[in-house]
Amino acid sequence: MRGREAVPDKQRAIGAEAAAAGPRERRGVGGAPAFRSLALGGVCLLAALALTSAGARASGGGAGGEGGHETGRLLLDLFILFVGAKLGGEICLRLRQPVVAGEILAGMIIGPHLLGLVSGSEFLGTFAQLCVVFLLFIVGLEVEPAGLLRVGKQASVVALAGMLLPFGLAMALMQWLQRPLPEALFVGAAMTATSVGITARVLSDMGQLRTRVAQVILGAAVMDDIGGMLVLAVVSGITAGALSGWEIGVLVGETCAFLVLAVMLGRPAMRRLSPGLYRSTMGSNRSVLFALAIAVCFAFSALAEVIGLAAIIGAFFAGIIFSELEEAPELRRSMEPIYELLVPIFFVLMGANVDVPRLLTMDVLPVGLVITALAIIGKVAGCGVASYRLGLREALAVGVGMAPRGEVGIVVALIGLSKGVVSNDVYAQVILMSVLTSLFAPSLLRVLLVPPAEATPNEQEASS
Amino acid sequence: MRGREAVPDKQRAIGAEAAAAGPRERRGVGGAPAFRSLALGGVCLLAALALTSAGARASGGGAGGEGGHETGRLLLDLFILFVGAKLGGEICLRLRQPVVAGEILAGMIIGPHLLGLVSGSEFLGTFAQLCVVFLLFIVGLEVEPAGLLRVGKQASVVALAGMLLPFGLAMALMQWLQRPLPEALFVGAAMTATSVGITARVLSDMGQLRTRVAQVILGAAVMDDIGGMLVLAVVSGITAGALSGWEIGVLVGETCAFLVLAVMLGRPAMRRLSPGLYRSTMGSNRSVLFALAIAVCFAFSALAEVIGLAAIIGAFFAGIIFSELEEAPELRRSMEPIYELLVPIFFVLMGANVDVPRLLTMDVLPVGLVITALAIIGKVAGCGVASYRLGLREALAVGVGMAPRGEVGIVVALIGLSKGVVSNDVYAQVILMSVLTSLFAPSLLRVLLVPPAEATPNEQEASS
Repeated sequence: MRGREAVPDKQRAIGAEAAAAGPRERRGVGGAPAFRSLALGGVCLLAALALTSAGARASGGGAGGEGGHETGRLLLDLFILFVGAKLGGEICLRLRQPVVAGEILAGMIIGPHLLGLVSGSEFLGTFAQLCVVFLLFIVGLEVEPAGLLRVGKQASVVALAGMLLPFGLAMALMQWLQRPLPEALFVGAAMTATSVGITARVLSDMGQLRTRVAQVILGAAVMDDIGGMLVLAVVSGITAGALSGWEIGVLVGETCAFLVLAVMLGRPAMRRLSPGLYRSTMGSNRSVLFALAIAVCFAFSALAEVIGLAAIIGAFFAGIIFSELEEAPELRRSMEPIYELLVPIFFVLMGANVDVPRLLTMDVLPVGLVITALAIIGKVAGCGVASYRLGLREALAVGVGMAPRGEVGIVVALIGLSKGVVSNDVYAQVILMSVLTSLFAPSLLRVLLVPPAEATPNEQEASS
Repeated sequence: MRGREAVPDKQRAIGAEAAAAGPRERRGVGGAPAFRSLALGGVCLLAALALTSAGARASGGGAGGEGGHETGRLLLDLFILFVGAKLGGEICLRLRQPVVAGEILAGMIIGPHLLGLVSGSEFLGTFAQLCVVFLLFIVGLEVEPAGLLRVGKQASVVALAGMLLPFGLAMALMQWLQRPLPEALFVGAAMTATSVGITARVLSDMGQLRTRVAQVILGAAVMDDIGGMLVLAVVSGITAGALSGWEIGVLVGETCAFLVLAVMLGRPAMRRLSPGLYRSTMGSNRSVLFALAIAVCFAFSALAEVIGLAAIIGAFFAGIIFSELEEAPELRRSMEPIYELLVPIFFVLMGANVDVPRLLTMDVLPVGLVITALAIIGKVAGCGVASYRLGLREALAVGVGMAPRGEVGIVVALIGLSKGVVSNDVYAQVILMSVLTSLFAPSLLRVLLVPPAEATPNEQEASS
């Protein structure tokens, strides 16, 4: 479980009771030489396979035939992507950094723009869209509205301030740079949503999940996710030409109706339906629930696309339907292998999309760093001010805890890229922002969270 | 667990100790009205969604844009395929028939040739190739050579006879029909491999897993799988132009080397490597093993393609590497959700490939039925004669138990189809053969297996 963090830890964080009950091992840092040889072995393996594949391509594919050769290339790509993601994640884990940053960086390195170990095929592009549907379904599955209500008012103020300020800052910057409005909107949307997994992981590591600060952060981050979906719906609508207030209103209405449908109708319906389904089908409860969840996930994502919203919005709301079911923990366990298979591949593909040499030019990098700075300032200022009542240090901790962007921001950038609204440069800048905010937040949060009376930073270092 | 049978039951059957220990629920048949309304609801849902999608297509896609609309179509296809597979499987389960037959039949019905609810996209074709890699990996994961050795000699004679006779009969038929040699070879190859899951399920249902007959069937079926991979390698090689004895020898050598590599080197290496990996990485043992298994599965499949074998051969051998690891049961549990997600989609897609109206014409159907008859006769005669020492009724039970073809035969047909070696008509005939042998065997086996002194057929009916 510790190998991944983005979402399973959100679950651990928000559903703290369940997490405390689970017999999850913690493994100390150790065996560094073994790891080094492992990493070395992995890199050698990658290099060897890349050479093999280059040889196979040069020789025209051997006896495998045309179709067979394509399959071989795809499997090789998947192997390289998966191993690269796991190595990058493991290295980041050892440096006490978020796994997702390691996966994206690994993608940048092995991607077509740097080492060129993987060839960006059309299949992988579509496959990533499928991965992200499952990712957002699982993110939705971790949202527990009941938990939200406890910290509701304060968290919603924090969430709102933390969305508006970064969005406004991003829009202002893009306007100042004279970028087209649709692109500016997408960048703004990518800046709104916090990746709660990274912060939840830090909070959980430090045993502070039950503090007021943690509850506010987690509550606000979840509202952020929902708000991010609304913003994405509006932004997609505007860029697709729905510029009148009426049409935007329809999109917001559709999204809200979707959410209400999921929460008001879907959840009770599922609670009523599932016992009947268990009784009337021949499968085990686990596999029936799993099949139902997959079916609803596909149906809602397809429905969202059909009515003009993004597929992930439907997937996210489908997840919410199942999140408070009695059997939700079991369903989350069933989704874990799918998460562990698809999500690293997704993030490494997102990294591979980045044109790294171009990103490092003076045309692109400075703006990327400014976007990153605005992303941090926006959340720290917005959320910090909104939670000033908790005290200065705590308010700062809330702001920093809300700073990391992760899956949702990247997905928004991906949608913009695939619609042709976001340029490759801006895509790279947004991914950079996601990686840097994810790297910056955990370390600072660890410092801010230490209750000064109880532990010095050294003790904290030793105990974690 | 009872929802699926092809492979998880193989595991249950061969690793009978593990199965007996697992707290797997069994659910009685009941709630038929609830099921009927459920099925009705599902069908209505399917129809509604198909209409929605037709409407969306007619109106040109709405605000989603070009890329977004394609994603929506894909998700809708996946939804229809998945729900169709689950409904078909459930119906077959209630009729005490193999799930896989229901999934294939569902695919035939909703596929582009009959109802046309799904559009066969290029993505789904490649996706199926990926599904089958996981399917064969999991099949390999169920192979436990130690269990094979107990019944080794007798089972290998049965397996060999049960492969040679159907292969020869198929070749003779295809030659008589003056079909080209490569196609004949593929049909022969598709006739060789037994789908052990279906028989294992019947044996397990009747509590006869530990009888001599069951052990011989299960042992021979596993050898069948390995033999089927060898035959596939040779057949693919021949059809790709490697007609000289030398080149065929190389292919067989490669496949055997692959097997030896997996069993002799891979298994001990994995046993040694995994504790070190657990110590030296930060992930939980479960997730590290899972990542390792996925990486090896991708690597072996890609390697198999690069050296000119089919990807599934590599995936199958990769599965064997992990099958006798101490942690194999845990790995199998981790693979279950992936199996439950991908395998129904695979079989339903295989059904959707079948041109049903064409299959039902007098040009195609009679040959399909003859192929089916030869498939049954070949196994019953070949395996039955080879196991005559067990007694007439038992020998017949072995023959019938070996008759169902499933995943491997279908995969062989798919490879032939995608290479352009197997025609659409012959593909449809092979799928028909797979479905009919799977439907025929369980009922007959139930009759044959009742020890006459202990229970009448009626009692058996009541107790199972």
